[in-house]
Amino acid sequence: MNEKTNFPTLEDIKAAHQRIQPFIHKTPIMTSEAIDKIAGCQIYFKCENFQKVGAFKARGAANAVMKLTDDQKANGVATHSSGNHAAALARAASVAGIKSYIVMPSNAPEIKKKAVKGYGGEIIECVPTLEARETTLEEVVKRTGAVFIPPYDYVDVIEGQATCALEMWEEGIAFDTIMAPVGGGGLLGGTALTTKYISPNTKVIAGEPEGADDASRSFKAKKLIPMVGPKTIADGLLTSVGKINFEIIMQYVDDILTVSDQEIIEAMRLIYERMKIVIEPSCAVPLAALLKNKEKFKGQKVGIILSGGNVDLGKLPF
Amino acid sequence: MNEKTNFPTLEDIKAAHQRIQPFIHKTPIMTSEAIDKIAGCQIYFKCENFQKVGAFKARGAANAVMKLTDDQKANGVATHSSGNHAAALARAASVAGIKSYIVMPSNAPEIKKKAVKGYGGEIIECVPTLEARETTLEEVVKRTGAVFIPPYDYVDVIEGQATCALEMWEEGIAFDTIMAPVGGGGLLGGTALTTKYISPNTKVIAGEPEGADDASRSFKAKKLIPMVGPKTIADGLLTSVGKINFEIIMQYVDDILTVSDQEIIEAMRLIYERMKIVIEPSCAVPLAALLKNKEKFKGQKVGIILSGGNVDLGKLPF
Repeated sequence: MNEKTNFPTLEDIKAAHQRIQPFIHKTPIMTSEAIDKIAGCQIYFKCENFQKVGAFKARGAANAVMKLTDDQKANGVATHSSGNHAAALARAASVAGIKSYIVMPSNAPEIKKKAVKGYGGEIIECVPTLEARETTLEEVVKRTGAVFIPPYDYVDVIEGQATCALEMWEEGIAFDTIMAPVGGGGLLGGTALTTKYISPNTKVIAGEPEGADDASRSFKAKKLIPMVGPKTIADGLLTSVGKINFEIIMQYVDDILTVSDQEIIEAMRLIYERMKIVIEPSCAVPLAALLKNKEKFKGQKVGIILSGGNVDLGKLPF
Repeated sequence: MNEKTNFPTLEDIKAAHQRIQPFIHKTPIMTSEAIDKIAGCQIYFKCENFQKVGAFKARGAANAVMKLTDDQKANGVATHSSGNHAAALARAASVAGIKSYIVMPSNAPEIKKKAVKGYGGEIIECVPTLEARETTLEEVVKRTGAVFIPPYDYVDVIEGQATCALEMWEEGIAFDTIMAPVGGGGLLGGTALTTKYISPNTKVIAGEPEGADDASRSFKAKKLIPMVGPKTIADGLLTSVGKINFEIIMQYVDDILTVSDQEIIEAMRLIYERMKIVIEPSCAVPLAALLKNKEKFKGQKVGIILSGGNVDLGKLPF
């Protein structure tokens, strides 16, 4: 952390929202009396599972692509991802009328590949190791001249994800706490920036799986400790926190609470049964953290970002 | 059909809506570009899966209970049901501050019993035959003096279910067709009344499972043919059409389209995957019927009522 990153300002985030608004959904906020009763507080769920491509990732990818100059756009964009960022970037590129190259591990689920292809993305397969992904991406960038858009450790992506909390604040609710899950830290970082700019006294608290708790451990140690061998049902949160993301977290996030897979599954089931919506396991992590620490949130107005709804229906843990 | 039933008028339906509004959700209408593209028309899904007790049944039960005189209310209400009507009636009674007696077959799912108890309903178990249910109900009514509120073959219940289509029309959409599933015919009857009163040229079309196709066969034969041995994954549509309901259907419904269980499962999966919402199999029947008969709906604005979201998550057919 020798170089100080210039974080996006509130004006930057508002401009990002203007920029991407035509290409994303303004997702609804849902509430559930039944869950409030169980939780002992008032929860406002921001439903990014209803977002384009089924996840908040549509925001950051759209913002990053729209901010490219025409020269940069000329050769398209590239990334490596087996998850929601892959589809989000392919879609953003398609909307912008440019090419996208997505490096995916050969064992990525067919449905993820289909989504990328559906948006006109070109898939380059590689063996399923991080090293192969990075080498293959380098080759693709070299060959095509495409701009690499990383999934989270990238200011324009964080700025895009920050628009989700902006929409929440525009609803006029006086949140005591806003919660998001943390994987790479793009959503959490953006949420923290927006929230602390608008309402410095509102707490920003993350939920993280015990089996991928690098953010929590790094937060406590005040230095970045990458995750080795993560293992959790919350497959969207396996990645380690990014560098820029960690800087923002250290400055603006109040706490990171960890939960077990069993607690994640119970919170997930509660959301399916009581709210009748489809979410991926990662989404249930903040609610699980809240239910595990009820006394911290008693009587509060809590905003929870449900990050996405791309789940393999044949493998639900119920 | 010797006696002519007095169907609820549009004014009756509007009054019912006023009456029950404080006790029900105004459910949202959702759309999906992806499904529209597949279907070749514009579909507006009315999400009664987000309704109180997780189904449109909350409307009819609330209306029937609120319309009782104080004398009638004194001894409470009773019904026999293993499904959504049981919870809906228990809840309506609880809101009205009166007792409810629910006759349930001993093999009813625990979760359904729990829902009834959660609303303070008194469960009276019986052996799982229709005869036992009816006899037990008679005994309960005799013993307690409670008023029997049937699940669908009852004008005040139909009037309540009719408020769902009323909310759809209030959105200002010029529907060419409105679709609902048909089981007992409470929702379909109410939907047909409201729609034909407001927009006589709009078609009202029902979807029905092939394995419980008494409404379709009765409709063609122009006489009520009860179902024997129904078998379908759409467990909310196993019952035979009621008498009053059939009168309304013959007068106001344009067509009843049948679909196989496989077609129901495919439409259900489409709704889970593309719309990220939880529905019960019965809900998917109209969409399945539309997708099977695309040419009938080409380019139209179609309203589809998603009737409920109470599904056993451990038994999803994916």
